[in-house]
Amino acid sequence: MITADDIEARLAGLDAIGATDAGFHRLAWTDEDRAAAAWFAEQGARLGLRVERDGAGNLWAVPDVPPPWWGVGSHLDTVAGGGRYDGALGVACAFAIAAAIDRAVAVVSFADEEGARYNTPTFGSRALVGRLDVDDVLARADASGVTMADAMQRFGVDPAGLRAAPVALERLRGFLEIHIDQSRALEEAGRPIGVVSALAGRMRVAVEIDGEADHAGTTRRSERRDALAAAARLIVGAEDLAAPNPDFVVTPTRVLVEPNALSTIPGAVRLWLDARAPRIEDVHAWRTAVDEAATRIAAERRVDIRLATASRSAGVEFDAAVRAALVADGAPELVCFAGHDAGVIGEQRPAGMVLVRNPTGVSHSPREDVSVADAAVAANAVAAALEELA
Amino acid sequence: MITADDIEARLAGLDAIGATDAGFHRLAWTDEDRAAAAWFAEQGARLGLRVERDGAGNLWAVPDVPPPWWGVGSHLDTVAGGGRYDGALGVACAFAIAAAIDRAVAVVSFADEEGARYNTPTFGSRALVGRLDVDDVLARADASGVTMADAMQRFGVDPAGLRAAPVALERLRGFLEIHIDQSRALEEAGRPIGVVSALAGRMRVAVEIDGEADHAGTTRRSERRDALAAAARLIVGAEDLAAPNPDFVVTPTRVLVEPNALSTIPGAVRLWLDARAPRIEDVHAWRTAVDEAATRIAAERRVDIRLATASRSAGVEFDAAVRAALVADGAPELVCFAGHDAGVIGEQRPAGMVLVRNPTGVSHSPREDVSVADAAVAANAVAAALEELA
Repeated sequence: MITADDIEARLAGLDAIGATDAGFHRLAWTDEDRAAAAWFAEQGARLGLRVERDGAGNLWAVPDVPPPWWGVGSHLDTVAGGGRYDGALGVACAFAIAAAIDRAVAVVSFADEEGARYNTPTFGSRALVGRLDVDDVLARADASGVTMADAMQRFGVDPAGLRAAPVALERLRGFLEIHIDQSRALEEAGRPIGVVSALAGRMRVAVEIDGEADHAGTTRRSERRDALAAAARLIVGAEDLAAPNPDFVVTPTRVLVEPNALSTIPGAVRLWLDARAPRIEDVHAWRTAVDEAATRIAAERRVDIRLATASRSAGVEFDAAVRAALVADGAPELVCFAGHDAGVIGEQRPAGMVLVRNPTGVSHSPREDVSVADAAVAANAVAAALEELA
Repeated sequence: MITADDIEARLAGLDAIGATDAGFHRLAWTDEDRAAAAWFAEQGARLGLRVERDGAGNLWAVPDVPPPWWGVGSHLDTVAGGGRYDGALGVACAFAIAAAIDRAVAVVSFADEEGARYNTPTFGSRALVGRLDVDDVLARADASGVTMADAMQRFGVDPAGLRAAPVALERLRGFLEIHIDQSRALEEAGRPIGVVSALAGRMRVAVEIDGEADHAGTTRRSERRDALAAAARLIVGAEDLAAPNPDFVVTPTRVLVEPNALSTIPGAVRLWLDARAPRIEDVHAWRTAVDEAATRIAAERRVDIRLATASRSAGVEFDAAVRAALVADGAPELVCFAGHDAGVIGEQRPAGMVLVRNPTGVSHSPREDVSVADAAVAANAVAAALEELA
């Protein structure tokens, strides 16, 4: 029986690493990331596991039996100003599970899951399944102008190893992840844990709108090519097209306006729309309708609108046998609308996820919250599943 | 008879001042502004006029007869990347007029009309009518951190003089301004010039929307407090409320989004709306309706929306006798939707404006265009009016 105290004791070892008054800062390939790796090594050594890094910088604590093994874990990096539990809870639980069960399992902490520094979410797991554009990501620069290749090199991970990272996947029989709920779904349901049936389908649409900057007063309505007014119409349209499906969420996340000056009609807008729904088919149908709306708005407002798919995930339905093992104690199933390493690994291996109740529903913020007693429920469910799975 | 060649010859003296491949850069209180003042002094001296600066930095070329005089002029500063004619054309025409007519007139070039450096449009004329918050403007810093007080001091104009600037207004009997049309109205009407009957009423509304930054995927629709989605609804509402009046223009000019990050629901938006209509009463009615729309959107989207009037101008109807004199040759009258020094002076003195056809309709850009033959039509109309006005 894994206890809340066991998990809390492990987690407490991370409390000082990257802690600030404004939340945790443990971005990938930094000194804080290295300190978290030292914690991982110490946790692994205590259990007699061999600690290694693979070519993508993922941390492994592996048993002294031949692979493949079931893996269990999550990630240790945070966004800038993140909370205590997102990622870290899953790794702390993984060590508690490895210590508690009879089966030999590998504990895995995926590198740069948040992707906060280079906009490379689920970096380490995507490297394992071979779904990373290596040349592209290595050339990216962070806010200080440091490329990812340089950051990895300085950190002590040879970026050339990225290309060979997929060989490490062969060592995994499957993968299980415990993670905080990033919604209030479990809180509202009054349940400590939930089993993820599937990750939602996701699409990020990059929109370029080109009108013409001109005088906000003297340009008559019939002459205006207002890129921001057109963007507002497109945002409203994109929301309204998703409205009939209550599980479909659309977010206008980011907008850049030129010249963004008082008294001047905006001449250009760059806009990003984030769309997620349980079924990727629904996202595709929405996108077709948004394309049509954009064509209509462009004609009405005399602007050019171009839409491009910046990223897309079909989502993943988790392995039926894994889900059955995880819900054995009656935990509810739910769809998760975030991306996770378990979802990426789930594309090529049996995988599963257990979410832990988060009273605030907030994530990527110090306001995220978890009771370790709930986490212990999750850890015991995963431990039981691992004893049972082939 | 004032000729196109006369105007072109004067204007050509400004062509090298602040010229770049990306338009003219003659911002207030800069070396380029000083070079333009030297051109002004030389133009005045050639006509035997005495050249002075008033307390606000406005340039005057005054006749050797006791005031008050009719003034004629415009401004010599430009926005960053402005065109050849906005302001400069009116001052060049003013010298041509002063040279051509029998009446003693003062040529005036108002300081910092564009207000591009400190967001202080019609700076010099507002100083004359006593409608400038002197402490506020002197403390403002430009993009390099230089305050307006320091910029004026370095330029050689004592900022303390600003408070006494209104005495200079006593020297003006009235004021006439020639300016390029900043719309395609005259081009489409096939007319070289038009007489401004009134400046439109204007209001700038500053909008603060506070929602909550959260995960773009895992935050369910019922929990979202999306500040940008709310801003888009407000922009569409503000446009639609103005729609029934074809002369009413509304522009969402500027928007700032926090955190403006991919994958995050925007937690805060700052938005500015620019609204203009011939009658300020229509602007006020629109604002009341926008306030109501904001209240509704705030409730529907669970965000806070606060609207404030950042600036407002009731507009001005130009003096009837001045308009009658200017339209003597049958020029059409039209409402102007921009702010101008003549409009500010018109609050306290008889004033008038003549616009010159601009085939592109563009202003604040090198793409603005004027035929000096059309400008000569304007100059002759103003000269004739000045001979006639009391």
